[in-house]
Amino acid sequence: MSEKRPSLSDLESRSDFVRRHIGPGQEDIDAMLKELGLTSLDALIERAVPESIRDTSGLELGADFTEHEALDYLRGVARKNEVKTSLIGLGYHNTIVPPVIQRNVLENPGWYTAYTPYQPEISQGRMETLLAFQQMTMDLTGMELANASLLDEGTAAAEAMTMLHRVGKSKSERFLVSDEVHPQTIAIMRTRAEPLGIEIEVGDAGGFGDAECFGVMLQYPGTTGEIADYRKLTEKVHANGGMAAVASDLLALTLLTPPGEWGADVVVGNSQRFGVPLGYGGPHAAFFATHERFKRSVPGRIIGVSIDRNEQPALRMALQTREQHIRREKATSNICTAQVLLANMAALYACWHGPDGLTTIARRVHRLTAILAAGLEKLGFKRVNKHFFDTLTVEAGDVAEEVHQRALNKDLNLRRMDGGRIGIALDETVGAEEIRAVWQAFAGTDNIDLSVNALDSAAGDGLPQALRRKSRFLTHEVFNSYHSETEMMRYLRRLQAKDIALDRSMIALGSCTMKLNAASEMMPVSWPEFANMHPFCPREQARGYAQLTRELERMLARLTGFHAVSLQPNSGAQGEYTGLLMIRAYHRKNGETHRNIVLIPTSAHGTNPASAKLAGCDVVLVECDENGNVDVEDLKDKTERHREELAGLMITYPSTHGVFEQEIRRICEIVHDAGGQVYMDGANLNALLDVAFPGRFGADVCHMNLHKTFCIPHGGGGPGVGPVGAAEHLAPFLPGHPLSPDVGGEHAIGPVSSAPWGSAGILPISWMYITMMGVEGLQKATQVAVLSANYLAKRLNRDYDILYTGKNGMVAHECIVDTRPLKDDAGISVDDIAKRLIDFGFHAPTMSFPVPGTLMIEPTESESKAEIDRFCEAMLQIRAEARKVTEGEWPQDDNPLTNAPHTLAAVTADTWSHAYSRQEAAYPSAYLMQDKYWAPVARVDNVYGDRHLVCSCPPIEAYREAAE
Amino acid sequence: MSEKRPSLSDLESRSDFVRRHIGPGQEDIDAMLKELGLTSLDALIERAVPESIRDTSGLELGADFTEHEALDYLRGVARKNEVKTSLIGLGYHNTIVPPVIQRNVLENPGWYTAYTPYQPEISQGRMETLLAFQQMTMDLTGMELANASLLDEGTAAAEAMTMLHRVGKSKSERFLVSDEVHPQTIAIMRTRAEPLGIEIEVGDAGGFGDAECFGVMLQYPGTTGEIADYRKLTEKVHANGGMAAVASDLLALTLLTPPGEWGADVVVGNSQRFGVPLGYGGPHAAFFATHERFKRSVPGRIIGVSIDRNEQPALRMALQTREQHIRREKATSNICTAQVLLANMAALYACWHGPDGLTTIARRVHRLTAILAAGLEKLGFKRVNKHFFDTLTVEAGDVAEEVHQRALNKDLNLRRMDGGRIGIALDETVGAEEIRAVWQAFAGTDNIDLSVNALDSAAGDGLPQALRRKSRFLTHEVFNSYHSETEMMRYLRRLQAKDIALDRSMIALGSCTMKLNAASEMMPVSWPEFANMHPFCPREQARGYAQLTRELERMLARLTGFHAVSLQPNSGAQGEYTGLLMIRAYHRKNGETHRNIVLIPTSAHGTNPASAKLAGCDVVLVECDENGNVDVEDLKDKTERHREELAGLMITYPSTHGVFEQEIRRICEIVHDAGGQVYMDGANLNALLDVAFPGRFGADVCHMNLHKTFCIPHGGGGPGVGPVGAAEHLAPFLPGHPLSPDVGGEHAIGPVSSAPWGSAGILPISWMYITMMGVEGLQKATQVAVLSANYLAKRLNRDYDILYTGKNGMVAHECIVDTRPLKDDAGISVDDIAKRLIDFGFHAPTMSFPVPGTLMIEPTESESKAEIDRFCEAMLQIRAEARKVTEGEWPQDDNPLTNAPHTLAAVTADTWSHAYSRQEAAYPSAYLMQDKYWAPVARVDNVYGDRHLVCSCPPIEAYREAAE
Repeated sequence: MSEKRPSLSDLESRSDFVRRHIGPGQEDIDAMLKELGLTSLDALIERAVPESIRDTSGLELGADFTEHEALDYLRGVARKNEVKTSLIGLGYHNTIVPPVIQRNVLENPGWYTAYTPYQPEISQGRMETLLAFQQMTMDLTGMELANASLLDEGTAAAEAMTMLHRVGKSKSERFLVSDEVHPQTIAIMRTRAEPLGIEIEVGDAGGFGDAECFGVMLQYPGTTGEIADYRKLTEKVHANGGMAAVASDLLALTLLTPPGEWGADVVVGNSQRFGVPLGYGGPHAAFFATHERFKRSVPGRIIGVSIDRNEQPALRMALQTREQHIRREKATSNICTAQVLLANMAALYACWHGPDGLTTIARRVHRLTAILAAGLEKLGFKRVNKHFFDTLTVEAGDVAEEVHQRALNKDLNLRRMDGGRIGIALDETVGAEEIRAVWQAFAGTDNIDLSVNALDSAAGDGLPQALRRKSRFLTHEVFNSYHSETEMMRYLRRLQAKDIALDRSMIALGSCTMKLNAASEMMPVSWPEFANMHPFCPREQARGYAQLTRELERMLARLTGFHAVSLQPNSGAQGEYTGLLMIRAYHRKNGETHRNIVLIPTSAHGTNPASAKLAGCDVVLVECDENGNVDVEDLKDKTERHREELAGLMITYPSTHGVFEQEIRRICEIVHDAGGQVYMDGANLNALLDVAFPGRFGADVCHMNLHKTFCIPHGGGGPGVGPVGAAEHLAPFLPGHPLSPDVGGEHAIGPVSSAPWGSAGILPISWMYITMMGVEGLQKATQVAVLSANYLAKRLNRDYDILYTGKNGMVAHECIVDTRPLKDDAGISVDDIAKRLIDFGFHAPTMSFPVPGTLMIEPTESESKAEIDRFCEAMLQIRAEARKVTEGEWPQDDNPLTNAPHTLAAVTADTWSHAYSRQEAAYPSAYLMQDKYWAPVARVDNVYGDRHLVCSCPPIEAYREAAE
Repeated sequence: MSEKRPSLSDLESRSDFVRRHIGPGQEDIDAMLKELGLTSLDALIERAVPESIRDTSGLELGADFTEHEALDYLRGVARKNEVKTSLIGLGYHNTIVPPVIQRNVLENPGWYTAYTPYQPEISQGRMETLLAFQQMTMDLTGMELANASLLDEGTAAAEAMTMLHRVGKSKSERFLVSDEVHPQTIAIMRTRAEPLGIEIEVGDAGGFGDAECFGVMLQYPGTTGEIADYRKLTEKVHANGGMAAVASDLLALTLLTPPGEWGADVVVGNSQRFGVPLGYGGPHAAFFATHERFKRSVPGRIIGVSIDRNEQPALRMALQTREQHIRREKATSNICTAQVLLANMAALYACWHGPDGLTTIARRVHRLTAILAAGLEKLGFKRVNKHFFDTLTVEAGDVAEEVHQRALNKDLNLRRMDGGRIGIALDETVGAEEIRAVWQAFAGTDNIDLSVNALDSAAGDGLPQALRRKSRFLTHEVFNSYHSETEMMRYLRRLQAKDIALDRSMIALGSCTMKLNAASEMMPVSWPEFANMHPFCPREQARGYAQLTRELERMLARLTGFHAVSLQPNSGAQGEYTGLLMIRAYHRKNGETHRNIVLIPTSAHGTNPASAKLAGCDVVLVECDENGNVDVEDLKDKTERHREELAGLMITYPSTHGVFEQEIRRICEIVHDAGGQVYMDGANLNALLDVAFPGRFGADVCHMNLHKTFCIPHGGGGPGVGPVGAAEHLAPFLPGHPLSPDVGGEHAIGPVSSAPWGSAGILPISWMYITMMGVEGLQKATQVAVLSANYLAKRLNRDYDILYTGKNGMVAHECIVDTRPLKDDAGISVDDIAKRLIDFGFHAPTMSFPVPGTLMIEPTESESKAEIDRFCEAMLQIRAEARKVTEGEWPQDDNPLTNAPHTLAAVTADTWSHAYSRQEAAYPSAYLMQDKYWAPVARVDNVYGDRHLVCSCPPIEAYREAAE
């Protein structure tokens, strides 16, 4: 070769993944830098990031694998997990993920890369399935209303408690929790109750009827497996002015009278056993169902049926004014997300099996449990629970430890309980072989004289006669149509085709960091060694997970400059809440119980004040100046005024205005000087990695959104993961877990999630990302994210004002585009712009946050220059269209913007009577002729839907009529 | 429960997979039976299948797993494969499958369930990638024309030989093969040459220049790794009237002067190392490139650029009149398919890496090879090949066996060669670690004084100075646009969205059996233990594959009633060819060399006569009667006339007319009585499983299409697998393999595929299918396939004639619908109907085979009644539309049929000037309002494309102009 000889290490292309993850190639980067008048990425960062915090010197991560090496290494880590059959129960069960769902949903970017359905017109597919999730929850629990899922069973129970606290008429602060509730659920409820002044008492539910309380928490079937008849109890509770929340099990409810039929006011639980992998604790979708009359008090998200502009049925998120991001410091919950991907998997599992299939599974599990029980009885073991569905608690006394050991030798995990009791929970994967093995473990010999078939006819029924289900469920067509794999595969494709996800186009949502979720990051999630681990299996079986979480914690701690990290919080808001609880605990530990004021800038995301409230703090707002920065004088003033009670400051950095505030170090110092702690919201961490370190410039505790900066996909609106990093003095307060003594610091706060490591099953995604990028790759990602945002701001600045910029006229990794002049000039609202972007095939940027009437745009480092240009051209074209309205060429009430999005039905109709042409409607840009997305519904009417609330599946006729 | 207590085994739902695979549920089945006036599936089979062959008594398969159990069991089997690093070469190399391609192509039903692109309008996506495959082949080989892939390197070389034999001017029958050609390639060429009278001589290519021959076969780089300069040699060969075929390596060609620049007339090779898993030998896409002037002689399929009716660029298969299914007994090749899925993966790998990326990989591999060579030299080992790219052949003499053992201990496989020589081939996965391990294996100690970095500067270059590549390659935009994962993911989605595959709607192609390819069947294909095995690794490492192939062979033999099965043929046509070679060998063994006449019914698929010709047989056609059955009198007559020379009969059963011929037993007897053998074409085996057994009712040898009856997906036009089953007397003739003595019978014919077990990597699919269905499930599948075809025939019979039926008025698993009256009445051709079906979102059934102007429809057992009804309604609606033309409501030259398919551009155009409305054009059925497929191009002009043949990627401007 005549060319210069490259070095061997250049040829190794060790940074190949970096260039795959980062959208713009070197040519693109050079062109964008040139547009900004800059010569290098380093120069860009020097201009954009305040010198006072800039810190790019030699981080050691100890990870720098190629894609291939990372997969190999992680496969080795995974193999350290021993997948045994866990019959532990506690709300987690083995399940069979239908392969057609695994392949076409869990492993399909069309599903997992989608965003939360804030833009209903482009989210009809996944909302159709969420509606099925709600319907399934209502049907099985017997309640009138269900939400679109919560984070886990424990937090759902806590939400039930706080909702009853709010909506009830009782003046009592007491909440009684049955000792039949799972221990981790009780622990989370305690965590959540204390700051709010709720007094929890745990005991035998038998005595609850006569006690004064605002509510009770029951479990049905209970943690021991017992199935009690709570009819009389709930009557009494109601008579005393209290209400009843019930944790339950969806599979059991196919055979048992649903709580809604015996007086429950809220029913919660985990839908994991409906085809969602165990994943060592998550992510799974918890369900939450209640009375219709509490609809405005329900936490989380609710999908409702409304109509679109053409009066066709259309889905959208209902009653959004309830949600914390709207209610801010008036919020009653900090739940800001759902577990959409997992809720959809669970709903699709129900569609796949249908009511008959689910009942068959439940009957099989129950029959095998009855046979198991009969055999154990023959072996002389006494059962604790009289009735049962799938769970037995057995007195093993002195031999308990031996039984566990023998079970382990047969690759079975049983539940360890106190007092020599052993728990055994069966599931759909269990067969005769496992039953025999359990018998042998109890008998102490393999030579047993018990036969599954013989005992089958002898075994009684464990369900109480009076509690057998009589009502029908899952009668809607969606649960009775897709029972062959071909039909299901096509249904999934049709649903997916309705939506815009990252596999289609850029989703430039400010603050949401919709970057690439690489295939190699996702693959390990499906590996059986990660997918099939029970969260409470013996730790020595989970050495792979131990290594994974240890390494990830270490890497995250280094990247943020903190001393330690907890992976437990399973959403960003949970991370915030955790951080505030830690600050609170820290002050208490120091004897400063009175410190309960949290300062929050007015620009903060609504979860900040909501989380602060839930942590028992009072919120004091700090003003922002005209540049969107914290008004330091006001901060000083408020700090001074609340000096004694100051718990701390919550601040987002870079700011929610998309700017690197110059004064961040000073801001932190002011708070510290007053004895406060600084909580940093890590939503915008994507602009900081290996450029500045929160733990070094003043933050004491910070959450990071693994689903933003660290590549966990948004899943259509969840899962999220929100670990917290803490400085050395706060690290001892990181959350603990009652079933996992190895989690949490010396002064650990209570658990905030049901599982010790939260949504452990998706942590491989972030591990892969960090490991493949290495420090240099992560720094480059930061640089390019900032570059792309500035390039985009520059391009749009031709026709739009950029609301806030930093000292050198630079934005951070996102920018706020002022679209209000279009409203003033042409009557074109930010909504019109968002909907018109759908006609261009784009998901709208963040609307009206933090500034009403504007768009906040974050391109991320993963989008190529070509895609950013395409988006900018759409925005400029929209400006030009608005101009035509201003100039009177198109009427204000009939132009492509106000009528957007245009559906296929409209554009292909035989008649067309608009002031603009079909071509102008459908193909405002030439590329759309090659690849056109069609919104399946026209603009959705939110008000109508909230006025006529329907949160269940409409009868199929509704669609049929609409189609005709 | 008040209901009847079900049995425990009912609750186990062991046949759950059966009901998932079979589309119609019990209600649907009952309804369809009722429509046919039948009461049970058994009664249906009694009516449809002749009693003389009906045979449903108690087959033992020994396999009956649930989906979950089957995956578990197979995982255990897979673990018996030990995945070591194979540096064996021989045309197979480790490669890194880009995860974005693995997940979104290999694991996405939108790609793998598509059919061969006979209907170009709905296949533009995959053809765009095939065109890139051709372009990549042309660029890298330096040739003018390439096809869309062949089955493997060995058969591609054989095709090159036979093509040169045909197109050359030499009268010689000699073909000289260099001893630098891979041994398995030589063996296949011998197999193929002998029946055609071609004389192969193998030797040192140095002497080829002066010998008389019609062609030579070279390898570049050679099997030892040597890189010879063949410029002078090819000049001499050309001067002597011969031509030169060259086997080559795509990665090497990024650095080496391409054969097209030094005189090659054909270049072939394996594209596997471009991101296609090893799979223990396949499936992979071989490439074939030659001069433009041979375009009508090129075997296999060629994608060409043409225009559609609106003069927009559009792709389609070019020059189809060359293909064997048209040429029948005049065919020059029996190639009936391509390896589309794998060719597309290889092309996408080239798009992913681009020219620079590929060059970087090649340079790295080469540099490491040079370092390895330098180290081995220092250790005192002599290299056989002077020049090299990635492969070294080293003299190890007496210590060869020790070196191999030590390498094995380091998990490395080296190539065993004769004379104490050892082959080592590097690839993109190899790094410094492996280099050191090879050194250590040769040195006999781990304590070596060699350093990769130190030797790097010392090591020379192994490429001959005179053969360094100077020409550019892969300059087209498609190879330079999708280098970030986000861009690639979106490109793959866009391509997929252009096509109709099984994930969208029913593909009722007669004889092609487009049934469900279940996700659980596909999953094991991606497991590393199956994907990453070299076909020539030591057998003791492949115990998993040994078990898999043994079990699959046994199950297939039982299901067909044969004594033994070979899995080697990697397509149906290769199976036919294999069977005929076996019959030929059998007669020869019996001293009946003169038996070379093969009787073939006129209704046979074109591959039958083509395969017979290639096997050196003469074809005599047998007439069919008016019912489409073999004219038994004519058969008797022809048998009698050719009694002495009769080799055998080729017959398809059920017939290609979709009928169970009553006389099949008698037909077989007539042939047997004359000393002939019966070859059964198993294309229609889906109508027979566990209902009748070819091996029991008279067939002596039969191929089965695993890609039809046994669920291997069609992949958009390949891969296929065509095992042959043989009766006891023919079993000794099953094909062997030179590198695998454990394959083949006592009198084995030569190999027909490059790898001993052909496309072993996808055999898990069929294993899973059979194992999950069990005998009962397979029988039920047969029954429902026959039921659905008869139901469909009954429904369509209202408006269309069904051309052929059996004794009781029944069809088998497919039916021929006579659409000729529409031509007569309204000028509506079968083509118009096929294209109009696209407007309904359907792929057309098989057109004009076996009867011109008709449609052959096979619904398969996997389609639900709802989908079959939807299809029938489309067909009836089309009939009604034709009637409007007959009745003059619409003109013959302007109606929705002749103008179909309607593109989005047409229906959304500002002007519309047709005799029918936009609504009538786009939504002839109401369901289309909910889910509409749009063909990206209008009807494609085939004639134009063949007249202006373009088989390379058009410059992007062509598309740009078209869009404007």
